[in-house]
Amino acid sequence: MPRKILTLLTDFGLRDHYVASMRGVILGINPGLELIDLTHQIPKYNIRNGSFILAQSASYFPKGTVHLAIVDPGVGTDRLPIIIKTKHYHFVGPDNGLLAAAAEQDGIVRIHRIQNPKYMRRNVSSTFHGRDVFAPAAAHLASGVKIQKFGPRLEKILRIEEIAPQFEDSVVRGEITAIDSFGNVVTNIPGSEISKKLKHGERILVKFGRSELNVPFLETYGDVRDGEILSLVGSSTFFEIGINRGNFAEKFHDVQMGMRIEIEFLGKPT
Amino acid sequence: MPRKILTLLTDFGLRDHYVASMRGVILGINPGLELIDLTHQIPKYNIRNGSFILAQSASYFPKGTVHLAIVDPGVGTDRLPIIIKTKHYHFVGPDNGLLAAAAEQDGIVRIHRIQNPKYMRRNVSSTFHGRDVFAPAAAHLASGVKIQKFGPRLEKILRIEEIAPQFEDSVVRGEITAIDSFGNVVTNIPGSEISKKLKHGERILVKFGRSELNVPFLETYGDVRDGEILSLVGSSTFFEIGINRGNFAEKFHDVQMGMRIEIEFLGKPT
Amino acid sequence: MPRKILTLLTDFGLRDHYVASMRGVILGINPGLELIDLTHQIPKYNIRNGSFILAQSASYFPKGTVHLAIVDPGVGTDRLPIIIKTKHYHFVGPDNGLLAAAAEQDGIVRIHRIQNPKYMRRNVSSTFHGRDVFAPAAAHLASGVKIQKFGPRLEKILRIEEIAPQFEDSVVRGEITAIDSFGNVVTNIPGSEISKKLKHGERILVKFGRSELNVPFLETYGDVRDGEILSLVGSSTFFEIGINRGNFAEKFHDVQMGMRIEIEFLGKPT
Repeated sequence: MPRKILTLLTDFGLRDHYVASMRGVILGINPGLELIDLTHQIPKYNIRNGSFILAQSASYFPKGTVHLAIVDPGVGTDRLPIIIKTKHYHFVGPDNGLLAAAAEQDGIVRIHRIQNPKYMRRNVSSTFHGRDVFAPAAAHLASGVKIQKFGPRLEKILRIEEIAPQFEDSVVRGEITAIDSFGNVVTNIPGSEISKKLKHGERILVKFGRSELNVPFLETYGDVRDGEILSLVGSSTFFEIGINRGNFAEKFHDVQMGMRIEIEFLGKPT
Repeated sequence: MPRKILTLLTDFGLRDHYVASMRGVILGINPGLELIDLTHQIPKYNIRNGSFILAQSASYFPKGTVHLAIVDPGVGTDRLPIIIKTKHYHFVGPDNGLLAAAAEQDGIVRIHRIQNPKYMRRNVSSTFHGRDVFAPAAAHLASGVKIQKFGPRLEKILRIEEIAPQFEDSVVRGEITAIDSFGNVVTNIPGSEISKKLKHGERILVKFGRSELNVPFLETYGDVRDGEILSLVGSSTFFEIGINRGNFAEKFHDVQMGMRIEIEFLGKPT
Repeated sequence: MPRKILTLLTDFGLRDHYVASMRGVILGINPGLELIDLTHQIPKYNIRNGSFILAQSASYFPKGTVHLAIVDPGVGTDRLPIIIKTKHYHFVGPDNGLLAAAAEQDGIVRIHRIQNPKYMRRNVSSTFHGRDVFAPAAAHLASGVKIQKFGPRLEKILRIEEIAPQFEDSVVRGEITAIDSFGNVVTNIPGSEISKKLKHGERILVKFGRSELNVPFLETYGDVRDGEILSLVGSSTFFEIGINRGNFAEKFHDVQMGMRIEIEFLGKPT
């Protein structure tokens, strides 16, 4: 029987003892668990980016995987530690919106609060619930403890407020969800919607901040020459903008996560 | 039977082939070992910070774990490669103070020099003992080779010179052991001592370098508003200073690891 | 039976969902595989540096390891996805020169194109073959699918054009292959050739860009005082230059990967 997989996503970085300690706590509870990092480089306190990365990657893992995610600026306050059981997975983390998108995408079955001290470390610090509350809960859960044992059932979870993309005749408005390490700008505009209105080769006007760019809509980066701007439906299934073998976010350094973005369709070049 | 865990801590970073090569060497000796990173981002040559991170995280791992730690500015010189057997673990690394705190914390049982070429790579380079000496030793040790086989017993290990915290009536002096990736400043002043003299809600004067700050002593970050400074006993069990949802080390950029720090108790605000 | 090892090398970084998604896809196909990172911090699009890191570390892994390597600026264009079977390993990645050095070093047995959609994700994006083509192929290969099943046999692979080192009487010319995170400069000049002409303690003139440095050739970093420059045969087996407990690349910040470098032998100091 393959070992049970437990993934980790945090904004802790890898420089400190935080992730190391969590790995130790988890393996101290069950040395047979398989630890897999999603990432520990979520920008500090950025719940929205954490939510995006989790929703993008969680669904590729095998059924039964426990996803532990911590971006938790409210640690030690009254936000609740929770476990969400979904169709294929369990999600463990703070109830601050971080888990919502990934959990809903897979289909929420039930939600429980983590409250039972039996599944926490004996001395719970007030600043590091990753080590003292979340890691032990995830380890026990992945070792077969039933979700009901951790605490009372909850009716609902917090969601991140987000501006849903708006579609008009020749204009789409959305926001920037992520800027990846290649400098590509990812939006919350579904590629499936864009593809209904726009054909490869057509041009669009992209507006964000003070920038206004006339760019082609294409299939892949190699469709323009090195250093040229293009837009496309990215591997995230969302609309994105980038530069072939270049860094869009470095060139247009006013671009930022969370910014509004507007696309205007210009039709085929004549 | 769960696989044997071997942790790695280095200042090698993850950009080069150094950690990759060590992982290969270890799995080449025993593909059944479970490799877990503590961190590879110890600041270059910073034995003191390596020692702190190791001591903070080693004890969470299951009994029998082999901890391999390398911050080794003296590679190729006469510092000795050693193995320390402690109550629950083995520690492998250079005898330069790096292993001392974590090993003593767990209780040193015996110390041996790594000298037997049988447990080294055939050609030992003079610049990369991580790959050629330490990784093979750790892999063989984790595979069941007895500590006595590696080389002669040693009587003692090197310790890092450190300024022990000093306690006066209304003043405590210590030093800064770590600045974490959130910008929080961690000292070597034990929280247990501070808590004897100081109640939550009281204020203190914190002095380091040219800075002198009047800050509250509280339980957790969320006890002040976003952007405000506070002091607290951190999850490391040591006294620390930070900014709620902010970065103290960026705001006070003269603060540095190794610096002296002084705390003066001011009592309850009136 | 130990689990099958699958290594990953990319220029994706660890900040985004790219590596997380690939890990999920691989474990979704076979949760029993052992994922080991070589590195994900190859400089973006830098096939040459990826090739160097892969060639430096691949050979330490146990026989049967599958090495998956992706630095793929041409994703979505006509460069081919390939599998190379070598004496001890399989290499999976784009046919752009990245795999050539490591594969040839181990001895190429046969090369196949990845073409069979059965071993790809159902919807192959045009921008993320790491997740949709390479990760599934590597996972299936590591799970026992024969190389012949993936697609037609190929006769040859692309190689990176490289300036072979030139040896004259008292001069050697080569290029800079890597600058490591310690700031050491690694060349493509084999240490074995240098050692024929140069003895420890002798001095050389090193020329790159506009710099010309008179430095000693020694055995290890500790052979000079802290902060002093030296040259040596590094653990990569190649000629390198660095500063003891310092950062050469920061001090001489015009030095860059890919640059020409010239060494002139000056003989023993008098």
